[in-house]
Formats: sequence, structure tokens, C-alpha cells
Amino acid sequence: SSSKVKKKMGGSRLWMKFDKFGESELFEWDKSSIIKRVGIPARDLRILGPVFSQSSNILARERAMVVNLEFIKAIVTAEEVLLLEPLRQEVLPFVDQLRQQLPHKNQAMNKSELVNDRDNKVRSTEAQWARTPEAVEGEQQELPFEFQVLEIALEVVCSYLDSNVAELEKHAYPVLDELARNVSTKNLERVRSLKSNLTRLLARVQKVRDEIEHLLDDNEDMAHLYLTRKLIQYQQSEALMNSAASHSLVPSQHALHRNSSHRSGSIMTSNYWDDDVEDLEMLLEAYFMQLDGTRNKILSVREYIDDTEDYVNIQLDNQRNELIQLQLNLTIASFAIALDTLIAGFFGMNIPCSLYNINGIFGYVIGGGTAFSFLIFLLILGYARWKKLLGS
Amino acid sequence: SSSKVKKKMGGSRLWMKFDKFGESELFEWDKSSIIKRVGIPARDLRILGPVFSQSSNILARERAMVVNLEFIKAIVTAEEVLLLEPLRQEVLPFVDQLRQQLPHKNQAMNKSELVNDRDNKVRSTEAQWARTPEAVEGEQQELPFEFQVLEIALEVVCSYLDSNVAELEKHAYPVLDELARNVSTKNLERVRSLKSNLTRLLARVQKVRDEIEHLLDDNEDMAHLYLTRKLIQYQQSEALMNSAASHSLVPSQHALHRNSSHRSGSIMTSNYWDDDVEDLEMLLEAYFMQLDGTRNKILSVREYIDDTEDYVNIQLDNQRNELIQLQLNLTIASFAIALDTLIAGFFGMNIPCSLYNINGIFGYVIGGGTAFSFLIFLLILGYARWKKLLGS
Amino acid sequence: SSSKVKKKMGGSRLWMKFDKFGESELFEWDKSSIIKRVGIPARDLRILGPVFSQSSNILARERAMVVNLEFIKAIVTAEEVLLLEPLRQEVLPFVDQLRQQLPHKNQAMNKSELVNDRDNKVRSTEAQWARTPEAVEGEQQELPFEFQVLEIALEVVCSYLDSNVAELEKHAYPVLDELARNVSTKNLERVRSLKSNLTRLLARVQKVRDEIEHLLDDNEDMAHLYLTRKLIQYQQSEALMNSAASHSLVPSQHALHRNSSHRSGSIMTSNYWDDDVEDLEMLLEAYFMQLDGTRNKILSVREYIDDTEDYVNIQLDNQRNELIQLQLNLTIASFAIALDTLIAGFFGMNIPCSLYNINGIFGYVIGGGTAFSFLIFLLILGYARWKKLLGS
Amino acid sequence: SSSKVKKKMGGSRLWMKFDKFGESELFEWDKSSIIKRVGIPARDLRILGPVFSQSSNILARERAMVVNLEFIKAIVTAEEVLLLEPLRQEVLPFVDQLRQQLPHKNQAMNKSELVNDRDNKVRSTEAQWARTPEAVEGEQQELPFEFQVLEIALEVVCSYLDSNVAELEKHAYPVLDELARNVSTKNLERVRSLKSNLTRLLARVQKVRDEIEHLLDDNEDMAHLYLTRKLIQYQQSEALMNSAASHSLVPSQHALHRNSSHRSGSIMTSNYWDDDVEDLEMLLEAYFMQLDGTRNKILSVREYIDDTEDYVNIQLDNQRNELIQLQLNLTIASFAIALDTLIAGFFGMNIPCSLYNINGIFGYVIGGGTAFSFLIFLLILGYARWKKLLGS
Amino acid sequence: SSSKVKKKMGGSRLWMKFDKFGESELFEWDKSSIIKRVGIPARDLRILGPVFSQSSNILARERAMVVNLEFIKAIVTAEEVLLLEPLRQEVLPFVDQLRQQLPHKNQAMNKSELVNDRDNKVRSTEAQWARTPEAVEGEQQELPFEFQVLEIALEVVCSYLDSNVAELEKHAYPVLDELARNVSTKNLERVRSLKSNLTRLLARVQKVRDEIEHLLDDNEDMAHLYLTRKLIQYQQSEALMNSAASHSLVPSQHALHRNSSHRSGSIMTSNYWDDDVEDLEMLLEAYFMQLDGTRNKILSVREYIDDTEDYVNIQLDNQRNELIQLQLNLTIASFAIALDTLIAGFFGMNIPCSLYNINGIFGYVIGGGTAFSFLIFLLILGYARWKKLLGS
Repeated sequence: SSSKVKKKMGGSRLWMKFDKFGESELFEWDKSSIIKRVGIPARDLRILGPVFSQSSNILARERAMVVNLEFIKAIVTAEEVLLLEPLRQEVLPFVDQLRQQLPHKNQAMNKSELVNDRDNKVRSTEAQWARTPEAVEGEQQELPFEFQVLEIALEVVCSYLDSNVAELEKHAYPVLDELARNVSTKNLERVRSLKSNLTRLLARVQKVRDEIEHLLDDNEDMAHLYLTRKLIQYQQSEALMNSAASHSLVPSQHALHRNSSHRSGSIMTSNYWDDDVEDLEMLLEAYFMQLDGTRNKILSVREYIDDTEDYVNIQLDNQRNELIQLQLNLTIASFAIALDTLIAGFFGMNIPCSLYNINGIFGYVIGGGTAFSFLIFLLILGYARWKKLLGS
Repeated sequence: SSSKVKKKMGGSRLWMKFDKFGESELFEWDKSSIIKRVGIPARDLRILGPVFSQSSNILARERAMVVNLEFIKAIVTAEEVLLLEPLRQEVLPFVDQLRQQLPHKNQAMNKSELVNDRDNKVRSTEAQWARTPEAVEGEQQELPFEFQVLEIALEVVCSYLDSNVAELEKHAYPVLDELARNVSTKNLERVRSLKSNLTRLLARVQKVRDEIEHLLDDNEDMAHLYLTRKLIQYQQSEALMNSAASHSLVPSQHALHRNSSHRSGSIMTSNYWDDDVEDLEMLLEAYFMQLDGTRNKILSVREYIDDTEDYVNIQLDNQRNELIQLQLNLTIASFAIALDTLIAGFFGMNIPCSLYNINGIFGYVIGGGTAFSFLIFLLILGYARWKKLLGS
Repeated sequence: SSSKVKKKMGGSRLWMKFDKFGESELFEWDKSSIIKRVGIPARDLRILGPVFSQSSNILARERAMVVNLEFIKAIVTAEEVLLLEPLRQEVLPFVDQLRQQLPHKNQAMNKSELVNDRDNKVRSTEAQWARTPEAVEGEQQELPFEFQVLEIALEVVCSYLDSNVAELEKHAYPVLDELARNVSTKNLERVRSLKSNLTRLLARVQKVRDEIEHLLDDNEDMAHLYLTRKLIQYQQSEALMNSAASHSLVPSQHALHRNSSHRSGSIMTSNYWDDDVEDLEMLLEAYFMQLDGTRNKILSVREYIDDTEDYVNIQLDNQRNELIQLQLNLTIASFAIALDTLIAGFFGMNIPCSLYNINGIFGYVIGGGTAFSFLIFLLILGYARWKKLLGS
Repeated sequence: SSSKVKKKMGGSRLWMKFDKFGESELFEWDKSSIIKRVGIPARDLRILGPVFSQSSNILARERAMVVNLEFIKAIVTAEEVLLLEPLRQEVLPFVDQLRQQLPHKNQAMNKSELVNDRDNKVRSTEAQWARTPEAVEGEQQELPFEFQVLEIALEVVCSYLDSNVAELEKHAYPVLDELARNVSTKNLERVRSLKSNLTRLLARVQKVRDEIEHLLDDNEDMAHLYLTRKLIQYQQSEALMNSAASHSLVPSQHALHRNSSHRSGSIMTSNYWDDDVEDLEMLLEAYFMQLDGTRNKILSVREYIDDTEDYVNIQLDNQRNELIQLQLNLTIASFAIALDTLIAGFFGMNIPCSLYNINGIFGYVIGGGTAFSFLIFLLILGYARWKKLLGS
Repeated sequence: SSSKVKKKMGGSRLWMKFDKFGESELFEWDKSSIIKRVGIPARDLRILGPVFSQSSNILARERAMVVNLEFIKAIVTAEEVLLLEPLRQEVLPFVDQLRQQLPHKNQAMNKSELVNDRDNKVRSTEAQWARTPEAVEGEQQELPFEFQVLEIALEVVCSYLDSNVAELEKHAYPVLDELARNVSTKNLERVRSLKSNLTRLLARVQKVRDEIEHLLDDNEDMAHLYLTRKLIQYQQSEALMNSAASHSLVPSQHALHRNSSHRSGSIMTSNYWDDDVEDLEMLLEAYFMQLDGTRNKILSVREYIDDTEDYVNIQLDNQRNELIQLQLNLTIASFAIALDTLIAGFFGMNIPCSLYNINGIFGYVIGGGTAFSFLIFLLILGYARWKKLLGS
């Protein structure tokens, strides 16, 4: 089996590991090492692969959460972050933020406290109503490790996308107004490239936004992301079982144990559960609104592009009609002149004509022909105006 | 930690504080002061920032509700409103309404009554069926402080949006009819700016409407907005706990307390809960319908714009075809005249021709050539009509 | 307070009151009288105002239902209908139907029977299976007063909309076929006004349909509309409470009472509830299907308009190409003739040429020039055909 | 009351009655007879009327199901089918199928067995796992009468729609390819009529599909369609009540009875219920997929039409540009010739010129003029090519 | 009955059977043999028929799952796969994968172990937290047979679709850029065929994606797919019943048994159920994301096509206007020359004129006429530029 697995995995890639205190290390791991380390099936590792480079997904698994937000590709467990491609240009701010904020937030917190988290919370809830600033700050520091990482990741991605959109906006309006003023191949090319940039950016923002909305819609999925809680619950139930095992329980209790460990004690603590999903819900809600605002900005740029294109289309059509109207005027005039030329041509024939011998009529002939042509010109012009084909 | 917080917060901004009795005070607060005062995470304060200036959101938090409705940016707690940028032009009517209506509604109500709210309600329900006008008025005065503020905010925003839409409508129809009559660059420019105004206004109305619809869809979110009720429940449960604590309860009761305070006693009073969400539901429903009507008006203007553009497009196309048809008529006639001119040109050549010596045929030659040309003209014209290219 | 209320309400309006037996009276009421009479907040009365003239809403309130279906603006309680603007042209059929059908349906029913409604129903259910016609008729007469009124209103509105759609359809197809045959400004204008009529009518039908669908989707909302049932339940619980009060119950029972009266005894009778929503569901379902059919008819007219416009667009484009093709043919021919004219023009120059002295070549020169021109004509024509620019 | 009913009903219509064994009879019934026979309100009978001729609906009522699938308009009870307009061309296959399949399926089943249906089912479930072919066949024969009829109706309607779509497809592709090759009024007319056929057919398929999807989405609605089961449960509860009545129970038990008969014993047998909805779910699922496939075929034809129209539009535009380019070439050439003609015209003037007396320059003058004109031609052509207006 | 069945079934088709250990056999079966073998109604077999060749469906039935994923048409039971048309080109990789992976995964597992699956799982869950690689591998091998097959099928189909999309992408961008550079009938034809390929491919990817999404949305449907579990539960309940039967239970217990076997013990083991749906959910989620990514790629190609077409449309319109502008320039120039020609023509008339006798004025006449014409040319050109019809 191992040979087959190796063949599939290909070469190893560069990962950076962070723990709670912001300590980082670089590793070269292949797929199977990662799978062993974080306990997820190989199938789920694919979403960190190159196929999903433009996509965004957050997967909740038993002991880890697989985060693929734009350029941030990481696996977060209750105790550490494994970050893929940590040296890419866009990922650096994320690495910086992790180094800065993690030690700060977790310096006073250690494993023993985590188990006492429950009592802790009761106290902080009380304090919360007392309106002391420390309590509020305290609440924010209370977020478990995995959500600290998630918030930093969302922060970095949101501001990255926001700055991209701002740049797009700054660029878009002048280009579009230029097109509205003057339709030229160069301007059209610029608008076209603007549109494909916009479409690509919109798809990316939308993907992150939809992923967060999807999480917000499903309380169960959010509960799955509480890795620290799940770990503590597992440890507690294991401790319980060990003590129970020493008192020789019947196998049917095994099933009970399994259930409570796996579903994290669904019956007993169900109220407790919903409760704490609220922390994550508030976290995600804030970033959802930010991304929704970003998306609305892009959509309004797209509306502006569409409106400009409609305008340009009608404008071009209208200009064409005006060109043709002028041309029509000239065509009518040319027709009259051709008529006059024909008359002159007749009298230029060398076939004998009695008029050729009468002096002093040159002016009258020219005058007569020209007057006749001018009359025809006026008649046709009047007809065209009567038909509303030529305006004033 | 405090130095880092300060750096983030930047300068302080102007806030106006209202209490229940409409008393207002102006303050210069920075972000951290606000956070301490109302107990919300810094993250949630962002939606009052400049990025969300065109957006609308209502966030329910533990002790406060963050209201961002168009230009109204405020934090409402059970006891006071903190209003951001209270001196902006559009915000003034809101300030006026708060000053006028709050003292009026709350003058007979004081804190001791709020705790008795429950009994109060039973009595008012009875009274309600008795059909005395006082009862009805009474019911309306019963709304808790936070919803009084919310209603005033919705009222102000709805009438602001409505007047904007009315203005847009008054402006739009003449502009569009003018375009339908006469396509010109100037009219096109006016329709284009009309369209982008409309799109922006629609986005704003839609945002407020969607936010209210979102709240209406989720009973739990609405329940979170009952700040006064949550405060009373917290006070009651604290009182209970203090008395319990003096009787030395086991820690497991702590958890129970926490649950009931945090989730506002989800099991015991769940029926009671759903019940009172109805007040807010009725409030929001009425404004939702108003905003929906406003939105439908904008949409019908947009439909009219689209129809006009379709009309203009087909009209321009049709006019062009008529122009080309007239041009074609002239082209056919010109062709016939060119033919006749050619014939005349032949006889204008100085190369000897036997006809040059025959007298009296001048008229016949001209007549023959012209007749031939006219015949050609009629043939081509007939062909074009037979092909349905030229109409009658 | 009363002065402020009056200022808001403005003048009084004309209302018509109907009771169960079809007896009607005309009244001049202002807003506050109505609010006192039916016990709804002023906020809800707005949907009967002029802003909502094109909108449709059905609001369920504690003791009344506010019905705004197209032109029918009424407040229905368990015992009477208050109809706004009863003398408008479109409302008259509704008034007629109320006068005709209400006394007929309620003549055998009086208040005492309503309280016995429950037993009544059991009997009718048995009878139902027995397949006697009386039982079926009986079931239909069983509808409470508010639904009798609602059904008459839906009936009147549906047939009004249906006849409007039928008229639109009758008008639309000839106009569109005329446009497809002959694109002219007049026909375009007619289609444009047809489209805006259609859009307006569609919006109205859609609004009524959506409102009914919305009700059908939410069993709770439908249950709120059972005004008669809520009234009886309130009366019963009040009787119960009065007797209980005389036996001095503890306050906690008050809460129970309140709950059961307000939520209509949600636990005990929840099965009973769902059950009777079925009557309303069946009623609304039938009208929903009718409105859905009406809407589909309008949509199919719109599809036809869109298809016709697409057709006209392509047809105009195609005709233009054919016009230009014919023009191109003539341009080629004119070019050849201009060439021939040039040749003739050369020989019309007065500059001495040796050919001028040779007799008998006149025909050859003309023939040569014309043949050369014709050759050029054929070459260009062949080139155009080879390029597929000119068809056969 | 009866006179009013009659007036509403109008004339009687032709119905065909089938019982379980496929025995059919023809009747002339008016609306009121039908209403009495099957126990549905007059309101529901409307969906079989002419207004709904293009629509599809399935209504579940207490004792009957009203089926309006395309041309099949029938009322199905637990014991018989009443088929409207049984002699229409499209309905005949349905009549044939009913005659063929009903006796076959029900010959071994009689009323006494139906009551024993429950035990029966247990046995067949066991048999099912035993993998004997009879068991499988047995399961299929187990469908109650109303679903046998429903399946035959769906079968007939699906194959009818499918054959219509197949015909449309066979017709559509050649017409569209012909249009892409050659845009002509005739081809445009054919595509236009193709499109309106397609739109109509799509609406019909969609309507049937949506109706089935709607049923599949709502387990309660599906449960309502189990007419046979509801009949048996009613009979059982009635028997129970009769025996209970003979033991003089208190009225409160009446309510219980009513509930269990009406809601078919919702609590006790709720598991049993869900279970059997599966039969209908499997039945509808299979036809839903078939209709979904049919719909996808139509949609792909529509996509093909849209793509072809886009292609034709761009193609016509492109062809027009090419036409104008050729015309421009000719215009440039004509301009050059006009210039040359002008030069010749100058020397055709009878005003004395010194060149008129020099022999042998005729050729040079012609050559010079023509060379000059040709140079102008080349200059303008080069300018047009430099501007990218004329291609190679 | 059998004769009718045969007639319906038509000829037999080629099937390949795989068991757990990857052993395959080829069979010629007709429909009725398949129906007997896997116990599904004939109706469900249709989705493997030719009508559904472009569609994708997964049907969960009592003892089998009918899989129609693109080209893979198979029936999977808890113990074997029946694969239709196993020799088609596209199906071969699926056959290969089945042969390779099935024996590998199931070699250590046999029927007796399957019954012990429950205990097994408990152990593996413990192991999971222990972070030993074997545990993780173990978890993956734990998937029941039907999901092993499903995963292989999804794997094969996803990579097939992905490679198709990659090919399409590779082909699309050059074709579209070529069209943007040069609009020609050939390029248009290529884009048109690209579009219909894309539409077809999108429909296929969408169908598979929607089917998986549909499954993911409905936990009950996913639970139905656990064929192995359902089989074990059936066997256990049968064993239980047999022992119960030997103790002569009352018939009412039959019903209980029936329920628990059919609904797989919905009450007792409901927690256990939800739990295991998670395996399938994780499996489907991973492939859903992959298909969603594939779909997004196609959609972005379609966006690019739409943008290119918009660009080409505006570009063609703009080019046409430029063509017409150049033509207008020439028309104005031609008009001036025609005027000049007319003047020359006048003096070419043979009618006596006093100028004919004055020497030395030839140049002045030519100069005067030409100057006049040039002035007219400049006037008209200036007018056109003033009207913004001709640019610089």
C-alpha cells in the first residue's frame, strides 16, 4: 500500500508550523506526513492543491480545520497551524500577523486554564454586565486558538481583497468615462481587460463570501469548527471511560461513550453548544458584512460598465444615423447636380440642334437647367423632411 | 495592550447621547471609550465606519444593538442611544424626532414599572379586547426603549428614501419621453446619469429592505434585539443567584445559571419569548412593506427605462433602414441619370459620327436616351419592390 | 397626545360598514376612530393609504385583518367589514357581492352556534363521508365570517385581473403581428405602450399572487387570520379566568392564562389548529392557482413580445444588409458607367487627337469603351460574389 | 340556494367513470352532480375548466384527488376515476391504458383484502429480502388504486410530452443551421414560430415538473394523496367509535376521534405514515427525473437558438461591415474617376485654350490626368488601410 | 403477466458484475433479470436507459443504489456492482479502478467482520486521537463497499470532466482572442461551436454537481444510501424476530418489527444514524467542491466569451461608423468635384457663349470653378465637424 500512496503524493512541499505562542518552524513535508499529523483523509488535502488556487473553502474535520482562503492555505488544529507556501508574497502579511498577535493573545493562557474554560466564562459573563473595560478585553482574548487564527486569516484576506477592489475602482471610472467620450479600439481594449479583471475579482470575493454565508447558515457546521472544545470533550470522556473501564462496565456503555465522544455529548450539553456557536457567529458575521460590502462595490462598478456600454451602443447608433442623414443630404444635392450635368451634357452633344445657332441664350439655358435641378433638390428634401427622415 | 489599541483607534469622533427622556449630550469619544461603554467587540464598530457609508446593517449584541441605517449610525442600549455624527444635515430630522417623541412616550414610565412589565402586559391584553381607546394607545406606548428608537430611525430613513424616489420619478418620466421623441447626445447623457442615480438608490433601498427581511426571517435574531428584556432577565437571575449563593449551592448550578442568563432561560420561557417577538415583527413588517413599495416604484422606473431603450434601439434601426431606402431610391435614379449622361457623353465625343450631320434628330436622341434611362430606373425600382426592399 | 394624533391623521374618509347579515352603513371616520374601533396600531393603517395603491397586502393583527387587495381596501374583524372608498367604480362589484352573499350564507347561523362550532364540525366530518349533498354544501357554509369576506374579495379581484389580462391578450397579438409585418414608428409606439401596460399589470398580479403564496408558506400566519376562532378562545379563557379568579389562584397561573389566550393554547390544541388551517389553505390554494394561471398568461405574452422584438431586430438588420447589397450592385454598375463616361469624356476633349479624323470608328470606340466597362463591372461583381458578399 | 348553484354551473359535460376493474361508463354530469359525488368544493372544480387548459395541477382533497395533467382532467377517489372529455384525441391513450392495466393489476385484490393491507405489507417486506421475483412483482401490484391511476396518467403525459419534444428537436436543428447559413425572411419566420412552439412546450413541461417537485418537497401533501389509506382509517375509526358510543363515552373522546380520523391518527401511526409516503415518493421521483430530462432537452434547444441568434447577429453585422468596406473601395475608385472626368471635362470646354492647338499631346493629357487620379486613389486607399478601416 | 413484461423489456444488454474482492464476470441480462436480482421497480431502471445518457442521477432504493453518473451506469448493492455497457471507451478506466482498488481495500475484511463493525469503529475512533498513521489509514478503509464503489465512480467522472474542461479552456482562449482581433465568418463559426460545446459540458458538470448537492442537503436521502448498514440491521431484526416468534408474540409486535426493519430502527438508533451520515457527507463534500471548482472554470470561460462578444459587437459598430465617416468625407469631396464638373460641362455646351471668343481666360475659368468647388467642400466639411460627425 505504501508504494501506491507514495506514487500518488509526488514530492514534498514547504510548510510552516505555528504554535499558540507564535513560535514558527519551517518543514518539508509530503502529503502522507501531513495526513498522519492532522488526521484528515487524503481527499480533503486536495482543496489546498493547485486546482483550487482561485477558490475558497473551509472544511471542518474531526481534529482539524482545512482553510483555503484565497492565497492562505493552511491546516489549523486546536494546537497548531500548518501553513502551506509560507514564503509567497501575498502570504507574508499573514505570517507577520500570526507572529505578532498569537503570542500576545495567548501568553496568559495555558493548557490547564483551557480545561477550566467553563468556569472562566461564567465569571466573564458576570463581568460583562458590570461594564468594566477589562471584562470586554477579556472576552475577546477568550477566543480559542483556532478562531484566533481564522480571524487573522479573514482579516488579511478581507483587506487584501478590499485593496484590490479599491484599486480597480480608482482605475475603472476614468477608463469608462473616457470610453463614453470617445469610442476607440484602444479604449474598448482597456474596458475589456477591465471587465475580465472585475469578473475574476468578483468571483473570488463571492467565493469567500459564499463560504462564510454557508457556514453561518448551518449551526452544526459551525459547531464542528470548535476544535479546542472537541479536544477537551474527548479528553474528558476518555478520562471518564478509563475510570469506568476500571469498574468493568458492560459493552453497551461503549456505544454510549462512542456517541458522546463523537457527537460531543449531543444531548446533555446541547444548550451549551448553541451558546458558544455565537462567538463564531459574531466573528463570521462581521467579516461577512465586510465582504458583502466589498462585493456590492464590485457589483456597482459592473452596473456602471453595463450602463456605459448601453450608452455607447445607443450613442454609436445615433451617430451613425446622423452620419447617414448628412450623407443623404449630400446624395440629394449630388442628384440635383447630376441632373444639371445631364442637361449640360445634352447640349454638349455634337448632334445639330437649333439652339446652337441662337446667340445670347447661354445664360438662360444654364439658368433654366440649374433652376430645374434646384427645384428637384428642394422637392426631394421636402419629401425627406415630411417623412421625418431629416430633422431640422 | 493599551498602546496597541490606541494606535488602531485613531482620533476620537463626535457622538450624541440620548437617554429615555430625550435628554441629549454631546461627547468626543474614541473607539475604546465606546467599546467600554456599550460592551461590544471592536470588530462590530467597523460597520459604523466610512467603508459602510452606503450600506445598512442592524447587529444584535449582548447589551447593545448597532444600527447602521443609511446615514443614521447609532448604538442603542436598553437605556441610551449613542448617535455618531449627529450634526450631519440628513441626521438632523432624526435628532429632532428623538427629542420630540422620546420624552412623550416615556414620561409615565420609570424603571420600577419596567420590572412589572409582565403583569402590565396581561392587563393590557385584557384591555385590548375591551376596545377602549386608551388601551390601544397604551399598547403603542408599551414598546421598550430600544424599539422606540428603532421605529423613529426607520421612520426617518423610510421617508428620506421615499422622498428621494419621488424626486427621481418626477424627473425620470419627462427625460425618458424626451429621449423617445428625440435621440440626441444630450438626452442620452441625461438618461445615463438618471440610470446611475437609480441604480445607486435602488441598492440603498434594497439594502435596508433586505436587512429587515433578514431579521423578520429569523425569530432568534429578533429575540436578541429585546435589550430591555435581556437586561431585566439578567438582573433577575443575578438576584436569584445571589440568594442562591448565600445558601451555598453546588457548582453545577452555576452552569445552569449561566445558561439561563445567557440564553435568557430558553426552556422555561420559550413560549413567552416567541410571543413578544410579535411586537417587533409587527413593527418591522409595517416598514418592510413600505420599503418594498418604494423598491417596486424604483423597479418600475427601471422597467420603463429598459423599455424606452429597447424602443429607441428599434426606432434608430428602423429610421436607419428608412434613410437607406430613400438613399437607395436616389441611387437608382442617379444610376439612370448617369446612364443618360453617358449617352450624352458619347455624342459629345469629337470622333466623327454620321448622326452629327443629320438635322432635326436632337430631340429624338435626347428623348430616346432619357426614355431608355427611365426604363432602366423603373426596372430596378420594380426589382427592389418585388424583393420587398422598398415599400410603398 | 390627542392634539398630535389629530394633526397626523388629517381629514376623515368615507367608510362602509357591513355586518354578518349584509347590512351596510356609510360613515365618515378619521384615522383615530378606526384605530379605536378595530384595535390596530396607526402604523398598519398606512397600507390602506395612497402610497400602496398599486400594492397588495394582507396583514393579520390581534382582532382584525387588514386587507389591501388591489382596489379593495378593507379592515375585517370577526364581526364586521369596514370598507374604504366604497363608492369607487371598481369596488362596486365587491359591495354587490357582499350584499348578495353574506346574508345568504349567515342567515341560519348566529352567535350561539359559533360557540358550538366544534361539535358542529365533528358532525359535518361524519356527514362528509356519508356523501350526502347537504353535507358538502354544509361544509362550505361553515367558513367563518372573515373568510367569507376574504373569498368574496379574492373572487372579485381575480376576475377583475383576469378580465384585464384577457383584454390585454386580445389587443396584444394583432399589434405584435402587425409590427412583425411592418416596422413603423406608429407600430413601435403601440408596442411600447402595450409593454408598459403589461409590466404594470404583471406587477399587480404578481403582488397578489406573492401575498397569497407568502401566507400559504407560513401556517402560523394563516392561523393568525382565524379571527372568529381567536375571539371565541379569548372569550372562553376569560370566562375560565373569571371563575378561577373567584377561587383565588396564584399569580403564576396568570402567566399560563396569558399564554393560552394569546397563543390560543398552543400545546393542548396544536393538532386542532393545524387541522383548521386547512380550510384557509384550501381556499387560498384555489385562488393561488387561478392567479398563477393569470400570471403565466401575462408571461407568455411577454415572451411573445420579446420574441417579436428579437425577430424585428434581426429582420431589420437583415433588410439593411439586403438594401446595402442592392446599393452595392448599383455602386458597381455606376462605377462601370463612370468609367465609360470618362472614356467618352476623353474623346470629348477639344485637344487634337488623330482619331478625330478617322471616319467610321465611332461605333468601335463606343463599343470598346462599353465592353471594357462591362468587363470591369463583371470582375468586381464576381469578386463580391466570391467573397460571399453578394448572394444569388 | 339551488337555483343560484345551477346558474353558476352552466351546462353539463361528458364524463367517463372507471372503477378498479377497468369497467367504464359514460355520463352527462353537471358540476353539482360531480361535487356531490366526490365531495369537493365547487372552487376546486375550476382547475378542470378551460382557463387551466395549458396548466397542470394536482389537488389533494379529503376524499378525492383532482388531477389536471395537460389534457388529462380527472377526479380520482379511492374507488373510481371520473375522467372529463374522455373522447378527445389525446386522451384516448389514457383511456386505453386504464382499460388495459387496471383489471390486470386489481383482479386478485378486493375490498376485503384492502382492509388486510397492513399485514399483507409486512409479509411482502419479508419477501422482498428473500429475492424471489414474485415478491418484487408483488410489491409493484401493491400500489393503491389512486396511484395506479396517477402512474398511468403520468406515463401517458410524459410520453406525450417526450414525443412532442423529440419532434421539436428533429425539426429545430435543420431550421437553425439553415438560418445560420442563410438569413432570409422565410428562415427568420420559421425560427420565430419554432421559438414560440418551444416556449409553449417548455411552459407545459415545466408546469408538470414543478407540480411534481412541489409534491415531492412536502411530505404532508403526499400523505394527503393516500386516499385508500384515509378511507380505511376513517372506516376503522368509525367502527371504533360505534362500539365506543355503545359504551357511552364522554364527549371529550369525540374530539379525540375526530382528530384521529381527520389527521389519520397523526401521533400513533406517524412512523407508519412517513414510511408509506416512500411508495409515492419513489413513484413521483422517477417521473420527475424523466420530466427533468425532457426539460433539459428543451432548454438545450433554446440555448442553441440563442447561440444561433447571437451568431446571426454578429454575422450580419460583420457582413455589413464587409459590404461597406467594398463599397468604400468603390467610392474611392469612383472619386478618382470623377476627378479624371473633371479633367477631361475641363478640356471639353469650348473656351479657347492654347493646348487645343498643339498636336500629339492628347495621349499625354489623358495619361497625366489618369496618373494623377490613380495617385489620389492610392493615397486615399493607403490612408484607409493605415487607419485599419480596410483589411487586406 | 410475464408475457407483457417481456414485451416491455426488449432485448437483453451486456452487464459486468463485480464483487467485493474485485472479481468480475460478464453477463447478458434482460431487464426482468436485473429487476429480480436487485429488487428495484422497472420504473427506476429507466434512468440507465438511453434517454438519460446526458443526465446524472443517484437513486437510493431499498436494497440497491442506482448510479447514473455521466457514462457510468451501474447498480450497486451491499455486495456487488452491476455495471452496464462495461466495454465502452470511457467506462474502461472505471473498470480498471474497480479491479485495482476493490481487492486492496477489502482483502482484510470479511462478512463476519462487518457484523462487528460497530466495535471496530469505537476502537478506530480512539486510535484516531492517538495520531498513529495506521488509524488514519484504517478509517479510510472502513468505508462500506457501496461507498468504495461510489468514490471510485466519482473519482473517474470528476477527472474525466476536469480533463474535458481543461481541454476546452486550452482551446477557448486562443479562439476568442483571434475573434477579437479579426472578425471573420470562420472565427465566428469556431466560437459558435465552442459555445455549444461549453453549454453541453456545463450542463453535464452542473447535473452531477446538483445531484451531489441535492444529496448533501437531505440527511435522510444520504442515510438511505447506507446499503450495508441497512442489510445488517435487517438481518439483526430478522434474527430478533425469529427468536421472538418462537416465544409466540402477539401480532402487534409484527408491526413494531416491520417498522424497525423498514425505517432501520428510527427511534432507538437515531443518534447513531446521523453520526454515520458524516462519512458519506465528507466523501460527497470533497467531490462537490471539486465539481464546483470545475463548474466555476466553465462559467469563467463563458463570461470571457460573453465579454468578447460584447467587445466584438461594439468594435464592429465603431468600425462601421469610422467606415461611414471616411465615406462621408469622400462623398463631400465627390460632391465638390461634381459641382466643378457641372461648371466644366456648362462651358462644354455647344450653345454660343461670349466667353468662347475670349482668349486667355481658360485658366481663370478652371481656377474659378475649382476654387468655388473647394470652398463648398470646406464649408460642408466644417459643418460636419461642427456637428461632431467627423472627428479630427
